[in-house]
Amino acid sequence: MPFVNIKITRDGATAEQKATLIKGVTQLLVDTLGKNPATTVVVIEEVDTDNWGIGGESITARRKAGK
Amino acid sequence: MPFVNIKITRDGATAEQKATLIKGVTQLLVDTLGKNPATTVVVIEEVDTDNWGIGGESITARRKAGK
Amino acid sequence: MPFVNIKITRDGATAEQKATLIKGVTQLLVDTLGKNPATTVVVIEEVDTDNWGIGGESITARRKAGK
Amino acid sequence: MPFVNIKITRDGATAEQKATLIKGVTQLLVDTLGKNPATTVVVIEEVDTDNWGIGGESITARRKAGK
Amino acid sequence: MPFVNIKITRDGATAEQKATLIKGVTQLLVDTLGKNPATTVVVIEEVDTDNWGIGGESITARRKAGK
Amino acid sequence: MPFVNIKITRDGATAEQKATLIKGVTQLLVDTLGKNPATTVVVIEEVDTDNWGIGGESITARRKAGK
Repeated sequence: MPFVNIKITRDGATAEQKATLIKGVTQLLVDTLGKNPATTVVVIEEVDTDNWGIGGESITARRKAGK
Repeated sequence: MPFVNIKITRDGATAEQKATLIKGVTQLLVDTLGKNPATTVVVIEEVDTDNWGIGGESITARRKAGK
Repeated sequence: MPFVNIKITRDGATAEQKATLIKGVTQLLVDTLGKNPATTVVVIEEVDTDNWGIGGESITARRKAGK
Repeated sequence: MPFVNIKITRDGATAEQKATLIKGVTQLLVDTLGKNPATTVVVIEEVDTDNWGIGGESITARRKAGK
Repeated sequence: MPFVNIKITRDGATAEQKATLIKGVTQLLVDTLGKNPATTVVVIEEVDTDNWGIGGESITARRKAGK
Repeated sequence: MPFVNIKITRDGATAEQKATLIKGVTQLLVDTLGKNPATTVVVIEEVDTDNWGIGGESITARRKAGK
């Protein structure tokens, strides 16, 4: 019954890529901890680059600066 | 002062339904634990079906498969 | 398949009270949005009063001050 | 390596204001706890006023009522 | 720069198992979305079985009932 | 009415340091976005270093390796 929340920047991840993440992280929990996949929930949140900061700067600002 | 975060799939929940959730969960915390409703916060997040997985598959894929 | 996260201060909520919260919020999602209870997950987190702030002060400090 | 999640109502916060939040909260963690800013992540989530409740009512309803 | 939060019941996961989860989910994000592992953060939360509900019941109650 | 969740590793942050974080982040939201401090909630979560990963490794392992 694990719950996994994956937050990424909104950068055009496709439905196929998100399906791969869901499948992969669910399988990882089955393989590593013997969790039941039927009740393993994965929620992916895509966040605008203005709203994501690291190193005290937004991702938008970092990309403009070539970081 | 509880904080409640409700994540659901984005399936057209109306403002009225969301108001019912907010009212109901706040009252539940008052009745069960004696919490102060004035500082009880409820945040509802609606998530695209491509971004929600259970059983290793996205909700989008499960619905297509008739699950 | 909703996911609900309830954060409360660690103030001795009993297993029975927590069971009431789990049952109540699950039923609320069934009644309001027609959600499937079998895949509705509720996670309760209990947080020390030093670690919870409102109005710019910790709950510990507010209680000491009689607020 | 702290992770900070700031949830606010969607009320037109500008990119500049969000950059100020990211910079400010990162600096606060450096100054208060000596954390490394390079791995301090801040994620801001903006939530519709229909989806945010306090006192058992949505922010939308509270604003209509002049609260 | 993804952020992953994994919530599981507190059932004695070892440091080695948790290290496997951290390594595996980080690699999954690298392989699937080309994310930078150096800024990929994974936080595992272990939750008491009294505090985790599914199907309207706590995990504690479900295990007692042999579910 | 913002809600702020700060996750840090469990490294002995004192009640005073946590009070400084609560006060500082609340003031930052007042100054930057004009938010009402009376309904601004801050929750600090302290996470074991085995349960926090970055760069595909736990903080425990990174510290042992002198990173």
